[in-house]
Amino acid sequence: MGWGDLGAFGEPSKETPNLDQMASEGMLFLDFYTASPLCSPSRAALLTGRLPVRNGFYTTNAHARNAYTPQDIVGGIQDSEILLPELLKKAGYTNKIIGKWHLGHRPQFHPLKHGFDEWFGSPNCHFGPYDNRAHPNIPVYRDWEMIGRYYEDFKIDLKTGEANLTQIYLQEALDFISKQQASQQPFFLYWAIDATHAPVYASKHFLGTSQRGLYGDAVREIDDSIGKILKHLQKLGISENTFVFFTSDNGAALISAPKQGGSNGRFLCGKQTTFEGGMREPAIAWWPGHIPAGGVSRQLGSVMDLFTTSLSLVGLQPPSDRQIDGIDLLPAILQGKLIDRPIFYYRGNEMMAVRVGLYKAHYWTWSNSWEEYSKGIDFCPGQNVSGVTTHSQEEHSTLPLLFHLGRDPGEKYPLSFASDEYQGVMRRISAVVQQHKETMVPGVPQLNVCDKAVMNWSPPGCEKLGKCLKPPRSDPKKCFWPH
Amino acid sequence: MGWGDLGAFGEPSKETPNLDQMASEGMLFLDFYTASPLCSPSRAALLTGRLPVRNGFYTTNAHARNAYTPQDIVGGIQDSEILLPELLKKAGYTNKIIGKWHLGHRPQFHPLKHGFDEWFGSPNCHFGPYDNRAHPNIPVYRDWEMIGRYYEDFKIDLKTGEANLTQIYLQEALDFISKQQASQQPFFLYWAIDATHAPVYASKHFLGTSQRGLYGDAVREIDDSIGKILKHLQKLGISENTFVFFTSDNGAALISAPKQGGSNGRFLCGKQTTFEGGMREPAIAWWPGHIPAGGVSRQLGSVMDLFTTSLSLVGLQPPSDRQIDGIDLLPAILQGKLIDRPIFYYRGNEMMAVRVGLYKAHYWTWSNSWEEYSKGIDFCPGQNVSGVTTHSQEEHSTLPLLFHLGRDPGEKYPLSFASDEYQGVMRRISAVVQQHKETMVPGVPQLNVCDKAVMNWSPPGCEKLGKCLKPPRSDPKKCFWPH
Repeated sequence: MGWGDLGAFGEPSKETPNLDQMASEGMLFLDFYTASPLCSPSRAALLTGRLPVRNGFYTTNAHARNAYTPQDIVGGIQDSEILLPELLKKAGYTNKIIGKWHLGHRPQFHPLKHGFDEWFGSPNCHFGPYDNRAHPNIPVYRDWEMIGRYYEDFKIDLKTGEANLTQIYLQEALDFISKQQASQQPFFLYWAIDATHAPVYASKHFLGTSQRGLYGDAVREIDDSIGKILKHLQKLGISENTFVFFTSDNGAALISAPKQGGSNGRFLCGKQTTFEGGMREPAIAWWPGHIPAGGVSRQLGSVMDLFTTSLSLVGLQPPSDRQIDGIDLLPAILQGKLIDRPIFYYRGNEMMAVRVGLYKAHYWTWSNSWEEYSKGIDFCPGQNVSGVTTHSQEEHSTLPLLFHLGRDPGEKYPLSFASDEYQGVMRRISAVVQQHKETMVPGVPQLNVCDKAVMNWSPPGCEKLGKCLKPPRSDPKKCFWPH
Repeated sequence: MGWGDLGAFGEPSKETPNLDQMASEGMLFLDFYTASPLCSPSRAALLTGRLPVRNGFYTTNAHARNAYTPQDIVGGIQDSEILLPELLKKAGYTNKIIGKWHLGHRPQFHPLKHGFDEWFGSPNCHFGPYDNRAHPNIPVYRDWEMIGRYYEDFKIDLKTGEANLTQIYLQEALDFISKQQASQQPFFLYWAIDATHAPVYASKHFLGTSQRGLYGDAVREIDDSIGKILKHLQKLGISENTFVFFTSDNGAALISAPKQGGSNGRFLCGKQTTFEGGMREPAIAWWPGHIPAGGVSRQLGSVMDLFTTSLSLVGLQPPSDRQIDGIDLLPAILQGKLIDRPIFYYRGNEMMAVRVGLYKAHYWTWSNSWEEYSKGIDFCPGQNVSGVTTHSQEEHSTLPLLFHLGRDPGEKYPLSFASDEYQGVMRRISAVVQQHKETMVPGVPQLNVCDKAVMNWSPPGCEKLGKCLKPPRSDPKKCFWPH
């Protein structure tokens, strides 16, 4: 889902009354980011509080589109990573994930091996086919047991877009919450729905109800479900004791627009890019009786902050033996404080851009390759900005492209290199970037499409790289793929 | 001001708390349009309830940019037109205009000759220079008397953007309302501020306060003023007896972005174009105790409806001797009804596009000329859509470009001509257009840059047109200027 998909963020059809009400009862974050413009890395960052480049959910093929076919990836979340549910468990919490895991499908990566107590969902997303078109092998699990497959036991009609999955996920959530409330046990629920991911789906009751087509139907069903979850918490009398956060793992994918594509509002481009449309996310915090109703926060936030904030809520400290990138947002949420912190925009292991205050500096620009673009794949349809949405990988490290996101949220007007404003701001940003790079220790990459250690099938083109699968630190750009 | 300038419509800095509150206390219109993508024609349409092509506020240079220099126009609102204040006067209302009139500056066009009882403001906008740079001749009037000039007696500092005008307009409004309340006299106040029109300005207290730069400062001051006006009505105890409507006369001008340009959200292009960004407007109706708080309307509305709706509010019928394009919105506002009606998008005397339901058909496309574009003037910066935002005047009357504004509010994905959806919808739209064209009787054009009857100075290029100033009805495209 994208920033612009919510009525509260200006979607012209205004079809998200429940999310809008959640915002009016809670706090709307205007400047909240994911940690990667792709799903798997974002989810790893959410659960570890660490940038993907640290926790391993990245590719060293730096500027590559980060394309991967989940079924072919044999890598996954490493045992050395400490996940949020592992820590919450120590504080007595029961942890459940409903929906998409996406951090590895081999047995050692099973969510119940990484802190979760319960699971209903799939190791990957519901898109297919993986093995073959007739039988896309996408297993669905209940806890340890595989109970069926998407498209077979859990129907998704690719022609009509009908699927009942969000309703199943909703019921799972309501049941889990009821059970926890009945047994007076604290809980962490990670409700990882995927109806807005192509192939987009909605259940019969919602099909054809949106002005926006199938994608809008999916958004409406999600919105409706969130309303039901919040009402359920209220009905059970635990809403004032339950912190709820809504966000997304990447900007809306514009390649599937208009039928299956969402909206990133007036931000530039979408999923897979490090422009605002790829990484600025809808975000709402809700906690009646604690969060002032109707609050709006300009705090620069990140999905990684949910790790640290959740620990703070239960009185735990984040691990001290490793770099944690998430910060505790409670001072921003409860006291309206503004915490000074940068946002780093990564694609693979490359820091493409950084935001400090209202300024964003692009050290690299890239939408997608000319090769893809010539085939009609466009990550920025109708939004191409000359010199900004480049189809070749352009390095700007010497003179980063600088934007003021207040005056120019659409990243259309780079500041003049010669201006005093540029000079002054870049001095400040350069210091932030230098410190960040000096202390960066990358993890073992888990998503390398051309790395046989984590993939059981490599796409055509890898052979070109020869022995260059792992670039030397002295020349980290050596192995870009595809060029 | 543009659709996307309001927090309620997703402006990412959310800096319009008063307008947002006005919306949450009243009704937000999502699909409200101006009658022209330019100021003068819109204002003529608002006050007459008629399309500019009927009331004379158009140019027969059909697709011309509609550029004109107000001071040079000797045309204006015709005596044959019946203006809203003329009718309200009959019902005992006192009518005041504060700010920009823009319907002619010659004595016969004075607002007090057309139904207004009081005036504080200028015949034109505050942009200049008209006569010369040192002394831009922009008079400011109180009623019949010229009391000074912009830039001289009413300072506008073009360097800093500082001007006190919105504060003066605000005080005028508050005083007028107080006076009317004290004398128990009903009133109509047309508060026609212009701070967001380049050169954008704000008063000292607001300068530098917005994340969005000077334009944002101007928006914040307008927002603040509207809050003060609404509070004043409440304080005087007349809010439940006062219908308030907020809207704009055209989409934000993107040519002056980012410093002086506003936002049309995710809509295409801006002022001067007939894409959504040029004509979809922010719109809020407010009437405590009558309009349900927090209402959202999908009624297709037009600035011309304010004419008919206002008459309805005071129990008057619109004139029956002429075509009135505005409809009575009260059933939509008070009972949530949806009235079926098309929206016509005109540029000059050419019907460029029409909206029926969620579909919009473009019969002509044009952003601006190659000549202008090559000089860096772009009405759609960073938004150019191939075949849609054309720089030559493209006729599509045989096969109009059709968009579904629900799935594709940004007008990026024309429907396939071959699709059943296209065929079915165009049948419906064609009938609407045919009926509209058959009954269209254009008025005498008042804005023709090359017509010596309404201009006292013609720009270079007019001589090319030779005797073709008024195109024959048989060939209305004959005199396009500039090509």
